[in-house]
Amino acid sequence: MKAIRIREPGGPEVLELVDVETPSPRAGEVRIRVVAAAVNRADLLQRLGAYPAPKDAPQDIPGLEVAGVVDALGEGVSSPAVGTRVYAIVGGGGYAEYVTVHARALAPIPEGLGDVEAAAVPEAFVTAYDAMVLQGGLEAGEDVLIHAVGSGVGTAATQIAVAIGARPIGTARTADKLERAKELGLAHGIHVQNAQFADAVRAATGGQGAAVIVDLVGGSYGPENLRAAAHCGRIVVVGLVAGRSMELDLGLLLQKRLLLKGTVLRARPLEERIAAHQVLARNLGPLFTANKLRPVVDRVLPLAEAAEAHRAMAESESFGKLVLTTG
Amino acid sequence: MKAIRIREPGGPEVLELVDVETPSPRAGEVRIRVVAAAVNRADLLQRLGAYPAPKDAPQDIPGLEVAGVVDALGEGVSSPAVGTRVYAIVGGGGYAEYVTVHARALAPIPEGLGDVEAAAVPEAFVTAYDAMVLQGGLEAGEDVLIHAVGSGVGTAATQIAVAIGARPIGTARTADKLERAKELGLAHGIHVQNAQFADAVRAATGGQGAAVIVDLVGGSYGPENLRAAAHCGRIVVVGLVAGRSMELDLGLLLQKRLLLKGTVLRARPLEERIAAHQVLARNLGPLFTANKLRPVVDRVLPLAEAAEAHRAMAESESFGKLVLTTG
Repeated sequence: MKAIRIREPGGPEVLELVDVETPSPRAGEVRIRVVAAAVNRADLLQRLGAYPAPKDAPQDIPGLEVAGVVDALGEGVSSPAVGTRVYAIVGGGGYAEYVTVHARALAPIPEGLGDVEAAAVPEAFVTAYDAMVLQGGLEAGEDVLIHAVGSGVGTAATQIAVAIGARPIGTARTADKLERAKELGLAHGIHVQNAQFADAVRAATGGQGAAVIVDLVGGSYGPENLRAAAHCGRIVVVGLVAGRSMELDLGLLLQKRLLLKGTVLRARPLEERIAAHQVLARNLGPLFTANKLRPVVDRVLPLAEAAEAHRAMAESESFGKLVLTTG
Repeated sequence: MKAIRIREPGGPEVLELVDVETPSPRAGEVRIRVVAAAVNRADLLQRLGAYPAPKDAPQDIPGLEVAGVVDALGEGVSSPAVGTRVYAIVGGGGYAEYVTVHARALAPIPEGLGDVEAAAVPEAFVTAYDAMVLQGGLEAGEDVLIHAVGSGVGTAATQIAVAIGARPIGTARTADKLERAKELGLAHGIHVQNAQFADAVRAATGGQGAAVIVDLVGGSYGPENLRAAAHCGRIVVVGLVAGRSMELDLGLLLQKRLLLKGTVLRARPLEERIAAHQVLARNLGPLFTANKLRPVVDRVLPLAEAAEAHRAMAESESFGKLVLTTG
């Protein structure tokens, strides 16, 4: 099969289209014929050599999410049937024509979603739902602050917040992304300069601050997050684009009784990967079918142009997801 | 009535025994005739002018927990009856012969506990149970790291951990306190020097780290806490003796999927104060009656010697609680 291989750690140019052996599903697994795979920041880190794949995943083929069709079943697997349209979060190996996954670590593609759209869903929407709702405990009527609101996770979190009756406030470093996020239901946009946003959040929430903060930025956003959070606020950190260290005011953490939590989807044990796909099937699928959620796809490129997709993501040019197709 | 008043912000010498008006219970409140009141670090901060009392509490009489007898009922209150032995966490005013509290923000003293012992229970045991079990989610079979294990909260947390089937590991800065904590069920003691303990915790947990950390120290203990925590560990910060700022490694927070939470009991809204006393009555009371928990009282002094009690606490001389009696 065709696949994108990381020749050696480096820039986008180290991604090369190669012929590799088509994987066979092991016991308990199915094979998916990949129609589309989406690009994630973690893929860029992996390409740079800074984020190795989990041991049980292909080591040199990036790609964390795919949409396609079940085309072979491993020993002991009777469901889903060959021919079922599915999407999945995988440990790696998504930039390829075929990938194998555990038969329960996938979900059916909801009615009305095409393959390209479907590939843009799993990582962004599960990360957003898991961070904002399951870990942050966001409830109807609460204000949620979403950083990098134009990103895949940001556009997903904005729509999920609206769908569950919460009020999304978002930040971005370009005004254009805030305008586009408003079309997705963003209630208030904050154009961030010099990592300052807490005063604007407090003003936008009647002085209360945000009940939940979904942070994909980290670093210098950390101290401002503590200021922007409401009493008993929950700050869930899912990304570190701006750096991995922050000065933490423990006094404020105590006084406001804040919760600060770090989370990643990758490298979770099997039972949690299955649970993540149950979120896709049970919580998110019906909202896609009801048109309350829609994936935001910025660009679609052929698999062979993975390097160009990586360059675009590194430049933060895109609004929503970048998707590669095998077709 | 007699009460200890903070004459002005300052050292222990600003505490003076004075005659003040005996408070009357308002609607919904009861008055407690205080037999014993315990000393907390927050009282020392309040005395220094660094931790004002909540608005609805006496402003210049310290004291956050008392044991005694209900002696008058406010309008609309029929229970608990006059004469009931109760203990309570109060917003302030505990260093006095009488204090008023909401009729539901108290709990009956368990069978077999004397008044002095009872006064040593509420803050320490509720703080420990709330931080370690309700917020940290400590479960049977898990390892919990308890800092300042010789403190009131530390001695309470150690016993609660044993009572619920968890395994307490403790730190202290004097070897003597670790030895005494072992009599309370401490499984492993770590003598901390230069704020280093993570390697010792990892060694004591088979390399896994602690599932829950109860931190009364803060400051320089912060980075070591992140290293000492297990994957998906929960770090609950309840005190800041060593400082209110720390350098936080967000990368480690994400990679280990850690939860960091700040909490204080004081200044919580009424419904949460009632819930705290329900913990005392429902969860902790039966364990005292069954002799699975016992308050650790270091010294008992007459109310007039509050200044000496403050001096002893500031010097960290004590193992367990310091209690003042009105008798």
